[in-house]
Amino acid sequence: MKVTIFFGSKSDTQIMQKAADVLKEFGVPYASYIISAHRAGDLLAETIAKEEEAGTEVFIAGAGLSAALPGVVASHTVLPVIGVPLDGGKVAGYDSLLSVVQMPKQIPVAAVGMDNAANAAYLACEILSIKYPEIKTKLVAFRKRLQDEIRADLDPQVLG
Amino acid sequence: MKVTIFFGSKSDTQIMQKAADVLKEFGVPYASYIISAHRAGDLLAETIAKEEEAGTEVFIAGAGLSAALPGVVASHTVLPVIGVPLDGGKVAGYDSLLSVVQMPKQIPVAAVGMDNAANAAYLACEILSIKYPEIKTKLVAFRKRLQDEIRADLDPQVLG
Amino acid sequence: MKVTIFFGSKSDTQIMQKAADVLKEFGVPYASYIISAHRAGDLLAETIAKEEEAGTEVFIAGAGLSAALPGVVASHTVLPVIGVPLDGGKVAGYDSLLSVVQMPKQIPVAAVGMDNAANAAYLACEILSIKYPEIKTKLVAFRKRLQDEIRADLDPQVLG
Amino acid sequence: MKVTIFFGSKSDTQIMQKAADVLKEFGVPYASYIISAHRAGDLLAETIAKEEEAGTEVFIAGAGLSAALPGVVASHTVLPVIGVPLDGGKVAGYDSLLSVVQMPKQIPVAAVGMDNAANAAYLACEILSIKYPEIKTKLVAFRKRLQDEIRADLDPQVLG
Amino acid sequence: MKVTIFFGSKSDTQIMQKAADVLKEFGVPYASYIISAHRAGDLLAETIAKEEEAGTEVFIAGAGLSAALPGVVASHTVLPVIGVPLDGGKVAGYDSLLSVVQMPKQIPVAAVGMDNAANAAYLACEILSIKYPEIKTKLVAFRKRLQDEIRADLDPQVLG
Amino acid sequence: MKVTIFFGSKSDTQIMQKAADVLKEFGVPYASYIISAHRAGDLLAETIAKEEEAGTEVFIAGAGLSAALPGVVASHTVLPVIGVPLDGGKVAGYDSLLSVVQMPKQIPVAAVGMDNAANAAYLACEILSIKYPEIKTKLVAFRKRLQDEIRADLDPQVLG
Amino acid sequence: MKVTIFFGSKSDTQIMQKAADVLKEFGVPYASYIISAHRAGDLLAETIAKEEEAGTEVFIAGAGLSAALPGVVASHTVLPVIGVPLDGGKVAGYDSLLSVVQMPKQIPVAAVGMDNAANAAYLACEILSIKYPEIKTKLVAFRKRLQDEIRADLDPQVLG
Amino acid sequence: MKVTIFFGSKSDTQIMQKAADVLKEFGVPYASYIISAHRAGDLLAETIAKEEEAGTEVFIAGAGLSAALPGVVASHTVLPVIGVPLDGGKVAGYDSLLSVVQMPKQIPVAAVGMDNAANAAYLACEILSIKYPEIKTKLVAFRKRLQDEIRADLDPQVLG
Repeated sequence: MKVTIFFGSKSDTQIMQKAADVLKEFGVPYASYIISAHRAGDLLAETIAKEEEAGTEVFIAGAGLSAALPGVVASHTVLPVIGVPLDGGKVAGYDSLLSVVQMPKQIPVAAVGMDNAANAAYLACEILSIKYPEIKTKLVAFRKRLQDEIRADLDPQVLG
Repeated sequence: MKVTIFFGSKSDTQIMQKAADVLKEFGVPYASYIISAHRAGDLLAETIAKEEEAGTEVFIAGAGLSAALPGVVASHTVLPVIGVPLDGGKVAGYDSLLSVVQMPKQIPVAAVGMDNAANAAYLACEILSIKYPEIKTKLVAFRKRLQDEIRADLDPQVLG
Repeated sequence: MKVTIFFGSKSDTQIMQKAADVLKEFGVPYASYIISAHRAGDLLAETIAKEEEAGTEVFIAGAGLSAALPGVVASHTVLPVIGVPLDGGKVAGYDSLLSVVQMPKQIPVAAVGMDNAANAAYLACEILSIKYPEIKTKLVAFRKRLQDEIRADLDPQVLG
Repeated sequence: MKVTIFFGSKSDTQIMQKAADVLKEFGVPYASYIISAHRAGDLLAETIAKEEEAGTEVFIAGAGLSAALPGVVASHTVLPVIGVPLDGGKVAGYDSLLSVVQMPKQIPVAAVGMDNAANAAYLACEILSIKYPEIKTKLVAFRKRLQDEIRADLDPQVLG
Repeated sequence: MKVTIFFGSKSDTQIMQKAADVLKEFGVPYASYIISAHRAGDLLAETIAKEEEAGTEVFIAGAGLSAALPGVVASHTVLPVIGVPLDGGKVAGYDSLLSVVQMPKQIPVAAVGMDNAANAAYLACEILSIKYPEIKTKLVAFRKRLQDEIRADLDPQVLG
Repeated sequence: MKVTIFFGSKSDTQIMQKAADVLKEFGVPYASYIISAHRAGDLLAETIAKEEEAGTEVFIAGAGLSAALPGVVASHTVLPVIGVPLDGGKVAGYDSLLSVVQMPKQIPVAAVGMDNAANAAYLACEILSIKYPEIKTKLVAFRKRLQDEIRADLDPQVLG
Repeated sequence: MKVTIFFGSKSDTQIMQKAADVLKEFGVPYASYIISAHRAGDLLAETIAKEEEAGTEVFIAGAGLSAALPGVVASHTVLPVIGVPLDGGKVAGYDSLLSVVQMPKQIPVAAVGMDNAANAAYLACEILSIKYPEIKTKLVAFRKRLQDEIRADLDPQVLG
Repeated sequence: MKVTIFFGSKSDTQIMQKAADVLKEFGVPYASYIISAHRAGDLLAETIAKEEEAGTEVFIAGAGLSAALPGVVASHTVLPVIGVPLDGGKVAGYDSLLSVVQMPKQIPVAAVGMDNAANAAYLACEILSIKYPEIKTKLVAFRKRLQDEIRADLDPQVLG
């Protein structure tokens, strides 16, 4: 059981860290690499192959601008690839969002929301949970805890 | 091994059929239901529970407009939910696209491209492939066939 | 006579407070709850039923991202539901705006402008005013005051 | 109990008729007028006053382009005004959608989805239902019928 | 020769001042008023009539959100009305831009760029210049000065 | 008294004809030319100068895509230039709309709505009306006729 | 002197043919291939290398949706790559436009307008013209012919 | 071998400097000018002619708002023109992006990403590299260095 996280630029580290934090919380081992699809395509292909060999079952790829990374990862593997569109601060973020989600037929990417690296990791856990019952157990408990907290905090006069 | 497909309106049948066609091609059993999240929320919850009981491991949900269906399915299960934004012909389709992909933290939906029900099914197969080696074998063969066909058809004078 | 306000996240408190402030100004009793539709759907359904029992006649629901909350509230009641799209800072706010306003046929939500919780409350008062003449009287006086203030402040050389 | 429907151009008749059809279905009396806010503002103001006198409790206003009509109606009344953005076929419909929904503070319009005149009427019924129990009864029955039909039609193999 | 400037909210004073500054520079007398079309429509109509009487030949109207002000001014006069869409910080400013520019047939507004109150004043001067030769002379001199300054500052190594 | 109309491509003739039709209706003489700013800039500059000599007092320029024509005309004259953004069928028309309206400071273009050549001509008449009382008289009569027709056609049961 | 044209799908042949037509008109030899970056990345890399060997000096790549093809070509070569965003009929074409143009630093793509394959070829000719004087001569003649035709056709009464 | 850089306003100096920095890094001589197409069109035409005479082989033009500059440069030359859309902070930058990229047939501009002046310079170098082998050698080395650095920095635990 392993997840491999790719992203293209050091400046995205802080946002992508949230994916790693969720994986740690669920006890899912992961590798993480900074590799740009456009600048180091061969290294990316090698690393995908190596990590697939090493037991990776889900890939997460975060990218901004004309965010090719998730799609290029998807072109090298039949494992599920989760794409995180990253907001580069231009054109209201539609560049990465549309680049990640509008994949051509036959080569899917599972897009999550803009900058929502945490959700990429939750989704990776859900995918792993169909094979690893311990992850499913943790997810069910996590969801229950979310609900319980909301119920416990419920205050009909939360607005003064 | 089972996939359950939801969509909200009979008028979406033709587009969602493409998901079913791909699942058939890969030998993945599936159920399919027309249930609107907004009009029949209780029936949706019941059906999700029943289908989870019946072995469903991945959900696909297609929806248009303020496409709540995938998110509501995701709120009832920890299994992976794939959302297909459907183009209702207004506001250039951004309503369903953004409603499907911009999920809040902790409750992910795996969005595919607009009207791309086929990719939802390919993604479902990729997810199942981490548990079912026969699906992985089929996916690898499928991808190889795609490449072989492109290579076989290669014509350096395709434009006259 | 009562209004119930829902929103999904503590971080939206400040904006939603403006709805409460307007209701107070018009003497309309209200309850207010933080409940996420995606994380605690059952609690939301319970609370809607309980508040309907307790005399609520209008619901206000504020939500960001793929803002399902107003629509989910609307699916549980035939009372009027006013949706406030909240700006999450991504994709120029079109995610919540379109999710709130583009409801499917038969299950309407009354959308107000982005982050415009005050207008949700004014609209709630207008709705209540068809039944409660004292609210209508206050609204008419309020509108007259607005006009009188503009007239009183009128300065043909406001730009130096 | 009365609803008054305004729209600005004969060419919008077919879409706005859907609002009238729903009102008829629920037994709600209505008047309907073609008056452009920009071309005949005085006539609009007169007609609003006359209809308010005649018992109108909710206004519906449909408009395209820089859709000022709902807002101008709202500026002349404290009764609830429901705005229907109409798609003029340009700029993906965002002109009328944003013009209708982004009202300034204190003068709310209740926006429904693009071209969704039916929902404007359902919303009008919901608003009237807080005062007229017979409308509430009809709405509850209508919603139940929607659910029953979906349940009755439920077919787990709707996709062949 | 006179220009009258309207805008809807005190918070827009700083941006609209730029229109006044340009008019002063060209020696064009102006009046300026804060009147909201939605909150004080009658006062607006009165003021338009009064200012038309007082010799106004061009109106400038700045407005944000569902910017009805320029269109409402245009509905009360056959004099040219220049609309300045003001950026309210939401939906990337498309609300005011589209509301101002997408006027219905027969009731034109002359839209300038977002927040570009200075250009509204330059345009007002250009309109006045067809009647007042002294304004034309000033505009020609102004344009020539712009060109001369660019030529004088020309530095083929402006980037180090 | 003269208006000169420019547009860039024969395919825009039908839409721009509506401007000519309005000018004829108001008895305003006009010239009209197909000249592309990008393909024949010198000819455009010559023609602007020649027409300014010949008494043109307002220019109308219609253009699609990265619609430079209105701005280039504005750069060659201090007369008012009205820009008509033409819908080329791509990117929802935002290319021409934004190119026409978002002019830099000091060189204004008066933008009208997308494909709204008629409004460009009404606006030209309004501009001319400040100098030519006969045009003002016609505009006032025209507006009155619009109102009278709406009043005459008023039918409180326009929806069956 | 050679240009190589890539595109991803047979359905784009008609639009991409316009690039070939322009190259033929200018006497520029070209190869053309249908290769999907996502489905046959290795074949694409091979073909780029082979064509570079065979004398290609400019690449043209047309792609729709999350149009990765131009960027992937650019990642394999330091020759100039011209990207043609193709309109897939969804999200108003912004998916391919933004994917093509918003390339990361250091790996440029020269984007032309949506579906504007002809301009990709004109741009390729302009690039070649800096090395091949015969192409420059043809381009200059072509531009002069464009101007001469506009001048010859000039009709000051093109609108009746 | 020379590149000429144009931009329209002193305020864009910092962003356009990045183009100059890249050209220096590759040893490509360049001139750079601040000239607005709308304010000083004649000076722009003169300077283009003079710089073409002086050996310029590629033009770079950066512009914001209704960014006419790149297109106007392209209308004066058959040399390749690279356009840099500059973000003016309004309408999410779509004004300059669409104005630069959506050029009419026959007069291409090579658009790079928003504010991406560095890529304009890399693209200029790629264009020059087809004629100047020393630039090609530098580009190949530069790309190799990029890859080597990514490989050298590769850390499979970059996320803690």
